This record gives sequence, structure tokens and C-alpha cells, in this order.
Amino acid sequence: MSENSAEMGFLAGIKVVDFTQFEAGPSCTEALAWFGAEVVKIENPGAGDPGRRLRKGQPDDDPYYFQMFNANKKSIAINLKSPRGVQIVKDMLKQADVCVENMAPGTIERLGLGYDVVKALNPRIIYAQIKGFGEGSPYEKNLAFDMIAQAMGGTISVTGERGRQPVKPGLSFGDTGTGMTMAISILAALQGRNKTGEGCRLQVAMQDAMMHYMRTNFSTQARTGEAVERDGTRSGGGTNGPSGLYPCKPGGSNDYVWIMTSRGNPEHWVRLCKVMGREDLADDPRFANPNLRVANDAELDPIIREWTMRHTKYEAMNLVGGAGIPAGAVLDTMELQNEETFVTRGIMQYMEHPSYKPFKMPAWPVRVNGKPPAVKASPILGQHTGDVLHGWLGLGDGDLAGLKSEGVI
Amino acid sequence: MSENSAEMGFLAGIKVVDFTQFEAGPSCTEALAWFGAEVVKIENPGAGDPGRRLRKGQPDDDPYYFQMFNANKKSIAINLKSPRGVQIVKDMLKQADVCVENMAPGTIERLGLGYDVVKALNPRIIYAQIKGFGEGSPYEKNLAFDMIAQAMGGTISVTGERGRQPVKPGLSFGDTGTGMTMAISILAALQGRNKTGEGCRLQVAMQDAMMHYMRTNFSTQARTGEAVERDGTRSGGGTNGPSGLYPCKPGGSNDYVWIMTSRGNPEHWVRLCKVMGREDLADDPRFANPNLRVANDAELDPIIREWTMRHTKYEAMNLVGGAGIPAGAVLDTMELQNEETFVTRGIMQYMEHPSYKPFKMPAWPVRVNGKPPAVKASPILGQHTGDVLHGWLGLGDGDLAGLKSEGVI
Repeated sequence: MSENSAEMGFLAGIKVVDFTQFEAGPSCTEALAWFGAEVVKIENPGAGDPGRRLRKGQPDDDPYYFQMFNANKKSIAINLKSPRGVQIVKDMLKQADVCVENMAPGTIERLGLGYDVVKALNPRIIYAQIKGFGEGSPYEKNLAFDMIAQAMGGTISVTGERGRQPVKPGLSFGDTGTGMTMAISILAALQGRNKTGEGCRLQVAMQDAMMHYMRTNFSTQARTGEAVERDGTRSGGGTNGPSGLYPCKPGGSNDYVWIMTSRGNPEHWVRLCKVMGREDLADDPRFANPNLRVANDAELDPIIREWTMRHTKYEAMNLVGGAGIPAGAVLDTMELQNEETFVTRGIMQYMEHPSYKPFKMPAWPVRVNGKPPAVKASPILGQHTGDVLHGWLGLGDGDLAGLKSEGVI
Repeated sequence: MSENSAEMGFLAGIKVVDFTQFEAGPSCTEALAWFGAEVVKIENPGAGDPGRRLRKGQPDDDPYYFQMFNANKKSIAINLKSPRGVQIVKDMLKQADVCVENMAPGTIERLGLGYDVVKALNPRIIYAQIKGFGEGSPYEKNLAFDMIAQAMGGTISVTGERGRQPVKPGLSFGDTGTGMTMAISILAALQGRNKTGEGCRLQVAMQDAMMHYMRTNFSTQARTGEAVERDGTRSGGGTNGPSGLYPCKPGGSNDYVWIMTSRGNPEHWVRLCKVMGREDLADDPRFANPNLRVANDAELDPIIREWTMRHTKYEAMNLVGGAGIPAGAVLDTMELQNEETFVTRGIMQYMEHPSYKPFKMPAWPVRVNGKPPAVKASPILGQHTGDVLHGWLGLGDGDLAGLKSEGVI
């Protein structure tokens, strides 16, 4: 454990039965695991979570993806196609606080573990389901992954260059963004249960979650009356300028800086003119207010670009940002990976894993009394089968040997 | 209140003193408000949250943005530059469970409301801070907004067309995505406090939060050893195909469908061949496995495109999705706004506001026992000053009149 991180016990004692796979579900249960909940992945004994490998039927050839989304969890391998396996999981659910699943529509019910069944076993449980589309949606039976949620939730339509085709935002927040909304709901429900003793059913659809994250776009549409168009090199809304992406030297694919003057602070524009050595522009009638700077951006942008292209993105960011104007270089994943202060601050941590080399990864980003939660190894498939079945259900070595010989675990 | 929504009391009794503005902070405290926490915005009596207007010094000319991020909250107008105003807020903090702020670096401390001061007043409080950059970052004093966080957190570098300039994802995920990580941390800390009685300090930086949402990209980089490049019309990682954005008739700016065959299910490819009436392709040696389909995408994509261009995006999605293959049309904000099942499912709700016309907006996307939390009006500036100061601190009409005449409220 890094000295820049800390063990977190906020959720110690909370038991989570975790049926999730890939990312939307695992990112949700991982949020609980960072804070000390006991999250037990229920995995198929043959292959486990399909997120463990790049291609079906192959070995665990992409450990990183799985490590990212399953830190600090346990794993039991148990066959849910065997009645005995289902019975064992039911016994676990009787004492769980939370269960979470993101299987294809109808699957958990076909396994005999639908909400009505589980609620009857344990009325205190918080039963959480993540799907692509909501119950009652025309697409409720359809499969979804991150990119489908981003297409159907609107985020792709607003992303890309002006006048060109749409593109998917390059990160998988169709999955992780959805997982976060469910983690919040689970934690709120736990707080409610402290008072009432009653559990509940929680359901989120990835499409619906994407719309929630697009509230700024919907507010723009409410103001203009028109569908929001994409224009990914400047700020949305078109109400303030300058605010956009400007090229820097030496002209590489990510040599850009975003410079932003806020609608909330007219001084940003004046300061920017000074940084560029162009105090004359502050009095230029073409650029006298935000409306005019937006309307005349075809004249303004080349002036700013002329200045940014004389600097690297780091220089430009430091000069502009240092003058009290919001500015950010476009950093790529390798630049972020190699930035040392992320390690000293515990934002990036090394996962020490018995099967793989130490792996540096982004940890939970929120610090508690100065330190983020510590990263612990993601589980090997079935690593905790014995421990959990003994600890939760009191099964002994003989029971476990029997279950193994019957192909249940 | 819509019949398709429900009053939520999970967090009833939790008192939140909310110093937040714009979006990263308000999205966090709104998440608490959906579930019944009493969230009291502390606003400047003159203008309030700058998110209330498009341009400084103008009237509240963009009610929608503020409504989106401040539903279900209260507002008190109080002057934090007056010692009496600060004292009143300190009296509120003594009985608060949570306080949240996202002011510029150093501002809350200059107001005399930094963590050490507030902790001394109330050791049980959960004190949450959202900034652009983390303590210890080289940029810790710099200002940040959504686009700066997205530049510095890597999301812009991975978004755009292959071989072209980067673009910002079109939604303000730098703000709202960060707010969600803080809401989770606050709720976990509340759960911990139920056991220990102790509060804590929580800090998140928007740059750090973005990296957390980029875990899939970092896992791709770990596998390839190279910075992740952008390629927004197909799936990241390049390990599976087909998965990408295909144009549809009649060729409008958002007439595209994302079709995805999963690495977890080889049947998706076979089914897609059948939907396109091209069963011959399933046996074509050029496309016999995911590796080959990626390697030969220059031959495969035109075949798929030829089919999609004969259909609208809705037809293509229904044909492909209906055959058990993940597929999603690229929907724009207006199509989503007008899709009726979002209203019948409570995912879109109308905010009924005393000052503005009813406003249809995305609500919290998670349903509890079948219904999402009900949207209630965002507050008018200072709407609850009297109620809260009376209810929390016992101030009477005479006290309030005095404070008003002194310019404190």
C-alpha cells in the first residue's frame, strides 16, 4: 500500500453480492469497494467475468482492463447453472446488504435470481440493476454497450468538428458514468435503510444516465429552440469568447491548448490581451464584449493562434494560466501516466498483484483527510471461494471439496 | 409532481450547506437533494450563483442551466463579506452534516471558512472541496472549468477523428463527472460517520476525476505501450470488429448508426451477416475472426456502409438490434427531448417554477421501486432566507428585518 493512500473503512461491514461484468456494473461496485465494502464477485468457474480477456476462449490476455475495474474486490467461482450453485448464492443474498447486476435483459430472472425472489429472501436488500435501456423504453430488450448508450443518449451527436461527422467521445463514460449514478443511489438507499430497515429495487438505464450528463446541452437547446450542434474546438452555447482549442508548436497531434475566458469574469479577456502583448485588443471595438468576440471569432481566432503557435502547449498554459485565465494543455495518456505528482498525491497508484507485474493505474480520485483510498489487487478468478463460503455460510473443507467435485465451484 | 416520479426520503434530515456555483459543485449537491437531503445554497445577495445568468451583470437570462443543476434545493442570500453574514453561516455549519464548495483556490479560506475553522466548529461535518487541480499539483493555484479539466485530464486527446485535430467531448462531463465522484464520497463518509461520529475532509480535483473516468484508455495504453490515439468512429482498443459508426439515409448530420459486435459473443458477427443478407461473409476467410475483421476493415466497412445507407438510422437500429446485436442510432438532443417514453418513465420531468414556464428536463436517472425522484423547482435567489434562518437558527421577524437593513441578507 502506498504511503500516499489510506485504508478506508467507511463501508466496512457492508456486504455486496456482485453479479456484474465488463464495466458499467464493475465501476459501480468498485466505487463501494474503495470505501471498504466487502464486494464479492460471483463468477462463472470456467472463464469468469468476460472483462478478464480480450477475446472469448482466450486466456486472461488483458489483465489491465480487469484490474482497473475490479480493484479491492473478492471473487468466488460458482456455477449458476447448477441448482446447488444458485442455492448457495441465495444463502449469500440472505445476508447481503446490496446486490448489483448488469446482465443482458431477462438473464438474472432466468437464473432464478430476479428481484421478487431475492426480496422474498431478504427484504432489507438493495437490489440494483444496470441495463442499456429502461423498462418501458421501445428498446428495453436490446443489448447495449458503452458506444450504444453514447449513441442513443445523445453524447455522440454533440461531439466532433463543426460541419463534420459525429464521433464517440473517446472515453467509456457510457459505462462508468452510469455506474457512478447507481453507486450514489445505492449509498443513498443504504442511508435510508438505516432508518426504515427496508430495502428497495434500483434500476438505471445507460441511455437515461447519458441524458442526465447532458443537462448543459439540454439547457442550450431550451434557450435556442434547436438541437445542439457539435463544435468541439470551442465552448458550447456560443455565448462567450474566446474559449477554444488553439494549436501550439511544434504542431504534433496533441499540441493544443484550451484557453477560456469566463462569462463570469470580464477581466479574463483583458488579462489575455496583456499576456499576448496585445493590450491594444482590449480596446478594439470588434472585441468589446462577449457577444462581439463570438460574432467576430473569424477575426479573433487567428490572432490568438498566431500567439499560441509561438509557444509549446506547456508554455502557453503556464503563461495564460499563470495570469489568472483558465487554460489547459491537451495532455495525452502517456503524459498523464508519466506525471510524477499523480503518484505523490496517490491519484495514480501501483496495484501489486500475485500474478502480474506491478501496475500503475488511476485510483479513486477523491482524497479523504489528505489521502485517496488504497488500491488493492483485483481478485484471481475464484480466489476467495473458500474464504467467502466459509466466512459467510460456515462451509468447511469437506463441504468445499464436495462442491468442487460436483462442479458447483 | 409527476405521477411517474416519487418523493425520496433516503437522505431526509441530512443538512447540507452548499457554497457551490456553476456545475461541478451544484451537480454534486443536487445528487444529494434528489434523495431528500436539505441542501441550502449560500448565495451572494446581489447576483447569486453566476450559473444563474449567461453574462455577468445581466438579468437571469438563462434560467434553464440553473434549473438543471439546482432542482430540489433551497437558497439563502447572505453577504459573506460582512462579519455578521459569516457568523450566521458558521452557526449553520455547527449543525450541518455536510458542506460543499467549489470556489477558486484559496477563496473559502479567505472568507474565514476553511477546513480548520469549520472542523473546530463542528467535528462531525463532512467538508467537501472540488477544485480544478489537486493540492500538490504544479497547477494547484490555477483556475479550471469543464474544458480545462477535459484538456488536462486526457479526454480531449482521445476524442476526434483519426488523423485529425482533437475535440472536446460535447458534454460537460469534466464538471458533472467530477461532481458524481464527490457525491459518492460524501455518502460513503456519512455512512462511516454513523459508526464513528467523526467527520472528515474530502477533496477532489477535476483533472484527477477525468483520469479516473479514462481507466479503459489507460488499460489500452498499458497493453500497447503507446499513448492512446483518437479514432471516434470505431471502438477503442482495436481488438474487435466490426464496431463503429455507419452512415444512414437520408444523410443528415446525425444520420448514423453504431453497430457493435462484442468480443464476448462471436455470434454477433454471424447474426449481422444474416441481417444484411450476406450470409456468405460469415465464411469469408478475410473476416473469419475478430483480428482479421479489424485488419481488413478497409474491405469490411464499405460492405456494411452499403447496407446501412439503404436504411434510416431507426430502421438500421431496429433490424440490427432486433436480431440480438448491439446497435444504436445517433440521436440528437431534440429527438431525445421529444421521445415520449422518457416522460412516461419519469426520466424526463417538468419543473414547475413560480417564475418560469414549465420546463422539461432530464431528472435523476435511477428509479427507486419503479420511479425516479421527483423534480422540484430550483430556488429563486434568497427564496428560503427567512425559512432557513428561522428553522435552523431560530431567528425571528425582527432579527431578519435587522439583518436586511444592515445589508447582511
